[in-house]
Amino acid sequence: VDEVAQRIAGARPTAVNLRWAMERMRRRARATSGDAAAILGALRAEAQAIWDEDRAMCSAIAEHGQALMRARIRVLTHCNTGALATGGIGTALGVVLRAAERGLDPEVWVDETRPLWQGARLTAWELGRAGVRHAVLPDSAAAALMAQGRVDLVLVGADRVARNGDVANKVGTYALAVLAHHHGVPFYSVAPTTSFDTACPDGARIEIEHRGAAEVAVPLGVRVAPAASAVFNPAFDVTPAPLVTGYVTERGVLHPPFEG
Amino acid sequence: VDEVAQRIAGARPTAVNLRWAMERMRRRARATSGDAAAILGALRAEAQAIWDEDRAMCSAIAEHGQALMRARIRVLTHCNTGALATGGIGTALGVVLRAAERGLDPEVWVDETRPLWQGARLTAWELGRAGVRHAVLPDSAAAALMAQGRVDLVLVGADRVARNGDVANKVGTYALAVLAHHHGVPFYSVAPTTSFDTACPDGARIEIEHRGAAEVAVPLGVRVAPAASAVFNPAFDVTPAPLVTGYVTERGVLHPPFEG
Repeated sequence: VDEVAQRIAGARPTAVNLRWAMERMRRRARATSGDAAAILGALRAEAQAIWDEDRAMCSAIAEHGQALMRARIRVLTHCNTGALATGGIGTALGVVLRAAERGLDPEVWVDETRPLWQGARLTAWELGRAGVRHAVLPDSAAAALMAQGRVDLVLVGADRVARNGDVANKVGTYALAVLAHHHGVPFYSVAPTTSFDTACPDGARIEIEHRGAAEVAVPLGVRVAPAASAVFNPAFDVTPAPLVTGYVTERGVLHPPFEG
Repeated sequence: VDEVAQRIAGARPTAVNLRWAMERMRRRARATSGDAAAILGALRAEAQAIWDEDRAMCSAIAEHGQALMRARIRVLTHCNTGALATGGIGTALGVVLRAAERGLDPEVWVDETRPLWQGARLTAWELGRAGVRHAVLPDSAAAALMAQGRVDLVLVGADRVARNGDVANKVGTYALAVLAHHHGVPFYSVAPTTSFDTACPDGARIEIEHRGAAEVAVPLGVRVAPAASAVFNPAFDVTPAPLVTGYVTERGVLHPPFEG
């Protein structure tokens, strides 16, 4: 169990709740006596508990996020933070979906989210399925929307939040934070407290995963950049706390520092 | 001639030097007497003159741009502004290529430039061919590079510069300008004065071309966004003059207002 948990936890270095969940599974295995079947049964129960709690956390986050919603609000988001990325209704996207359920008729600007198109492929699909008005855009076009006064609020997820409030999230998040600040648009991180790493003092200590060149140079299997060209492909970036208006969590809208 | 010139000039509404070149061809046709062969010969000579002048302008721009260069400078650029986009060595890219010819060993960060990948497909190819060190990145990753202090200078082209100095250029340029401003990185527009529209008072009067949804939703022929999703796909954006450090032209580095 230790070996497998370590392998899973090491698959992605930036997000912290994967490590948190693996640590919980290891603790449960250690606390269980009996044969392999007993341990497997305990691990299954723990996994189910984690899922149940995640659904409850998503729902509580969506509820607390309603404080930011109003009729026909125009929300810009990045990457995917819905049911496809969580155990429940989602985090940033969950706030919007809950507002739609309540009849607030929100409109969502969906960053396509290069290089893996999580916005175009996942978020747009979830919004379409829920009947929420939305439009997909190249990541670099978000600035023009803000300049035109067409974005009321930016909601993004978080892969890890440091004690001082610095947020590691999908690459492109930091650019949105700077742009939102420049245009006076509120910018909220939306994530469960299981994504908060109170042992990590600030964003500079967060390891950023860098991914292969092909995602950028050979998108969708088609080569666009010369094979000899170098590629810069960080999966995440760090948004400094001063650019974050607030942190929507299952405990409410919080502000740093975040103590353990 | 008038009819054809009007059709060509109307093909792209944002750039101004296409209209300028067509106007020049119409004037030349009007000033020529004789039969169709005489008029075609005159138009051919005018086209050749425009090309010769463009090459000379590119070369002069590259020369004036050397004032911004230094050994091993790290330049970030967007879209394509090299020999594939001009009649000569290029504009923004020409400055870098000239610096490389002079042995300054520049390094270029190349925004891939969604949705049409002009950076990955064209700029990276030109830089590779010239033996200039470079790396291609998702447009949204430029902010992380700036935060890490890895960008010394941003050089972009211009499709149209208004009298007050507002610059219309490839979508994503405005985001770079805001980010450069936030990080204290100099940001220069590099373009011939034929791209300056002194009759246009400011960027708000520049018509921005919006392009079809497929470029975003079906990149490289592969559908990534649901067919039912709306798409926001402006080809250009406007960078306000206060975010532009200077304007490199064939006449030197200029500052607004630009009089006719």
